[in-house]
Amino acid sequence: MNYQEIIDEIYEEIKSTDDIGNVASIIPELAQIDPDQFGVHLTTVDNREFGIGEWGTKFSIQSISKVFALSQAYKLVGDQIWKRVDVEPSGSPFNSLVQLETNNGTPRNPFMNAGAMVVCDILITQLKDPVERFLSFIREIALNSGINYSKKIAKSEKSVGYRNIALCNYLKSFGNIDNEPDQVLDFYFNIYSIEMSCQELSNAFIYLANDDFRTSENRQVLTMSQAKRVNAIMQTCGFYDESGEFAFRVGLPGKSGVGGGIIAIHPDKYCIAVWSPKLNEKGNSYRGMRFLELFTTKTESSIF
Amino acid sequence: MNYQEIIDEIYEEIKSTDDIGNVASIIPELAQIDPDQFGVHLTTVDNREFGIGEWGTKFSIQSISKVFALSQAYKLVGDQIWKRVDVEPSGSPFNSLVQLETNNGTPRNPFMNAGAMVVCDILITQLKDPVERFLSFIREIALNSGINYSKKIAKSEKSVGYRNIALCNYLKSFGNIDNEPDQVLDFYFNIYSIEMSCQELSNAFIYLANDDFRTSENRQVLTMSQAKRVNAIMQTCGFYDESGEFAFRVGLPGKSGVGGGIIAIHPDKYCIAVWSPKLNEKGNSYRGMRFLELFTTKTESSIF
Amino acid sequence: MNYQEIIDEIYEEIKSTDDIGNVASIIPELAQIDPDQFGVHLTTVDNREFGIGEWGTKFSIQSISKVFALSQAYKLVGDQIWKRVDVEPSGSPFNSLVQLETNNGTPRNPFMNAGAMVVCDILITQLKDPVERFLSFIREIALNSGINYSKKIAKSEKSVGYRNIALCNYLKSFGNIDNEPDQVLDFYFNIYSIEMSCQELSNAFIYLANDDFRTSENRQVLTMSQAKRVNAIMQTCGFYDESGEFAFRVGLPGKSGVGGGIIAIHPDKYCIAVWSPKLNEKGNSYRGMRFLELFTTKTESSIF
Amino acid sequence: MNYQEIIDEIYEEIKSTDDIGNVASIIPELAQIDPDQFGVHLTTVDNREFGIGEWGTKFSIQSISKVFALSQAYKLVGDQIWKRVDVEPSGSPFNSLVQLETNNGTPRNPFMNAGAMVVCDILITQLKDPVERFLSFIREIALNSGINYSKKIAKSEKSVGYRNIALCNYLKSFGNIDNEPDQVLDFYFNIYSIEMSCQELSNAFIYLANDDFRTSENRQVLTMSQAKRVNAIMQTCGFYDESGEFAFRVGLPGKSGVGGGIIAIHPDKYCIAVWSPKLNEKGNSYRGMRFLELFTTKTESSIF
Repeated sequence: MNYQEIIDEIYEEIKSTDDIGNVASIIPELAQIDPDQFGVHLTTVDNREFGIGEWGTKFSIQSISKVFALSQAYKLVGDQIWKRVDVEPSGSPFNSLVQLETNNGTPRNPFMNAGAMVVCDILITQLKDPVERFLSFIREIALNSGINYSKKIAKSEKSVGYRNIALCNYLKSFGNIDNEPDQVLDFYFNIYSIEMSCQELSNAFIYLANDDFRTSENRQVLTMSQAKRVNAIMQTCGFYDESGEFAFRVGLPGKSGVGGGIIAIHPDKYCIAVWSPKLNEKGNSYRGMRFLELFTTKTESSIF
Repeated sequence: MNYQEIIDEIYEEIKSTDDIGNVASIIPELAQIDPDQFGVHLTTVDNREFGIGEWGTKFSIQSISKVFALSQAYKLVGDQIWKRVDVEPSGSPFNSLVQLETNNGTPRNPFMNAGAMVVCDILITQLKDPVERFLSFIREIALNSGINYSKKIAKSEKSVGYRNIALCNYLKSFGNIDNEPDQVLDFYFNIYSIEMSCQELSNAFIYLANDDFRTSENRQVLTMSQAKRVNAIMQTCGFYDESGEFAFRVGLPGKSGVGGGIIAIHPDKYCIAVWSPKLNEKGNSYRGMRFLELFTTKTESSIF
Repeated sequence: MNYQEIIDEIYEEIKSTDDIGNVASIIPELAQIDPDQFGVHLTTVDNREFGIGEWGTKFSIQSISKVFALSQAYKLVGDQIWKRVDVEPSGSPFNSLVQLETNNGTPRNPFMNAGAMVVCDILITQLKDPVERFLSFIREIALNSGINYSKKIAKSEKSVGYRNIALCNYLKSFGNIDNEPDQVLDFYFNIYSIEMSCQELSNAFIYLANDDFRTSENRQVLTMSQAKRVNAIMQTCGFYDESGEFAFRVGLPGKSGVGGGIIAIHPDKYCIAVWSPKLNEKGNSYRGMRFLELFTTKTESSIF
Repeated sequence: MNYQEIIDEIYEEIKSTDDIGNVASIIPELAQIDPDQFGVHLTTVDNREFGIGEWGTKFSIQSISKVFALSQAYKLVGDQIWKRVDVEPSGSPFNSLVQLETNNGTPRNPFMNAGAMVVCDILITQLKDPVERFLSFIREIALNSGINYSKKIAKSEKSVGYRNIALCNYLKSFGNIDNEPDQVLDFYFNIYSIEMSCQELSNAFIYLANDDFRTSENRQVLTMSQAKRVNAIMQTCGFYDESGEFAFRVGLPGKSGVGGGIIAIHPDKYCIAVWSPKLNEKGNSYRGMRFLELFTTKTESSIF
């Protein structure tokens, strides 16, 4: 399959139509981004790479980081993690407190904000220096030492993060946070601030597509069974309240971030990262969603 | 892969452990079933068949019928169907009225009871004799004229179906039912009463696994894109509030029924039907779920 | 206190300002009413009467009837009634199904539609001919044989009553309706269709203001303690999601109906009925609410 | 009416039966209290006083303080307060976050925790030194300089106050808190820690029963209309999810605290304070509720 030709063609098609979403406005730093940037990068399990547009520009990966955090925690504590967070789609907004009230403090899945906080809490308990060790983990699986936090973004998010502060303290009130909420929140905002390019993302996530993948330290990231399970959670819960729609239209496990990035994985075939800052009303990249729908249609490569 | 060997082995393993679920007790007729029956049948896209246990015994397929109804309506009206029912997992019980209140009468997906009622309403509007024509549709795709409704089951469900009557009238109050609620409900209870064996089920659902499948009338059931989309909805919404868990453990699109049946589909490979009447607390067959988890693990055939 | 002067003055003040509500449009028959009608009638515990405007015109009392139904059932079964319906304000719309899901089929109070249905169910079980006997009850306490149902209104409400049909079947599914839903609904729609004038209403409700009141058959309607409790429920639950506002602004126990009527009771002093068909956004008579607020302010006769 | 005889008699009756509630266990300091203490004090509008049991022992008044805070804020900003907090009963637990999600950050009433936080926020904005000025306000209306905060209680509540921290940050995320959440929470926990005896309480609340009441500085606390409205809110919202029950059984405006205190007001007649630390399942003093029910029954002094 000539991936380059296909992504070029779709890219041009989308470029030529209106981009009708809006850049995330809640986080001051993110609101300042140039909204017309648009990049795509695909990495195959046999290490071929294809890119178009701003595939090399770093952006704030935001919630996409939740997949890295989940993977690191899953690797560290195994199935113990599922005692504290469920794997069900929520039918609720990503930052819903209602859902927690209904489920006595157990987040529906690790990709809701509450679920990611529980994952952060586990990492803090497990690792001496979580901020440092989480970054090392990403660098190791991405085979790339050039990945970093953005202190500015982390600070910007914290300055308006009242709802997340509420969420974390609420979890604590149910006993589902072991460390101090302030410590968990600091780590949480750091995680969100990681900056990566489409190329870096599609390379970093190969561990979920390729069973034989080894890190820069020659380690397996997750067992085959664990990797399949992370993919399954991405399939059912990766796009907030639009997860069904993404499965329906794109048909791949994936994860979006409010910075406009989306990663999607075709097990045994490829990882693809798309980035365009304008978001649709459900908070997912408008062009990103559109690109991936056309891509799996043209390549007939949905998993379904 | 030697499917027969694998299903025999798993079957014996499960047979030898406790069956800790409970037979559905709400519907009087269903409550009388012999709870120890256990059957499995697998049909590959190249028409090989494998069975073990009570694979030839007919049982009440119940909600599994929703996939047939969705397919027939999708074939008839195309994407118009999505104007009246969404494709998102619900995070709510299958018969939730709350969900409708939140979404102004639009069911979250066609596998919740409310969604299936909207599908029934569409079929009534489209077909002159929906009860007859729905049965013909199943017989045609199953290449099997021996499939029938059970009047006794339909009557039994109606006699205690107050919550479904509530649901249908509630949908009507939002304007999302065109026909009279009584007519919709009669058809709805009929659909649920279809009786099929594991073998019949795994044969009937091949249209979702094999793009080249043709019915007894040499017709395609759904376009490739439509079939993929039905699979995607099964993946995210097929097991009520346990859909995420099923994706996580089994990793295949599927649909369960309160009669203890489960159908699962591996696109391009096979359909597998499992039946065991005792249900776990989420309303899905305890042994069925267990069987499928072991099956995709041993065959390494999850789609993720 | 010169009640006539005060009600004349307030009536003129309100007449001279815009009436900004809307006539109930859900029920076809009610929608046809002349929206400018406006009547007030006050009856004191010592049998003085004062009226202004259309105080003698009959109108559909709708939900106000729930107070009569509750009183008759309370008289018949005593505190047994509270095993099936609670006395708490709901914080939900009058026809909420969500509330029932949360409380396992126990309506929050007898003035929500669901609660009134449970009351109707009790009356059906207790009385041989509930339709006839309920009317006799009202006639007896109103000392007035000219009070009747409106078959036309009852039929009109039933023709669009899908949400109420849903509610009643939903209650039945929880086991909180003993009779057949159809029978309960028929009685329920009849109750709503009672037609009375402001004068008839303020006379009929004197049993809740005057401990010594006797019916045309020289019977006490409720014990003093029961009457106080019905008043308490009206105070906390009589105006749907505006009950707090009514207590806050008017400060009397009362009950409104979607036909634009409101009855309010000052224990030991008087009953006052107001009628004006245009409703505010919470479903209570706009002018009625305004009138009563000015009335208790000028007469300094709130109970608080 | 011989109040002393009546309260003596009821007190003995209740003393002689089991006290089946539980002391509040969430707040460490409160959990240590002697659970068998039981006091009652009544003050009439003409300054007669009656007490029995531990009427002179100070205890943590907790949520009862919300009435003082509301009164002070109402006096300061008038009806502006209702732009930020509603006056409707909630049908939800006192510390519900769900309710806020439904109402976009507007608390249902000033006696839910969220509503009290908005009131605290208003006081902080209005007063230079709110901690000092709030205490002065209570001392002035209680004509009693011996009323104080308990630093120990305030600290104890803060140490486990994660849910309240969540609530305050959640309100801030909706824009309904102007000051920093930390500052609001500090003041909020202080307010709760006020310690008063039954006698002090029944004296302090006379301003809600007696229109002619003047403070130690010879000031009116609230206008007559404002006082009536505070009473109305207490009637409909004073006992969390048991407000309807309290109106039904006791029939007086009132407010309870998790320390086991209850204040009830009979406009134009008296204030009565009851204290017994064991709480029923809704969080209100078991003996307190029982005492007041018997009291208004024997004195026939419900407002209904």
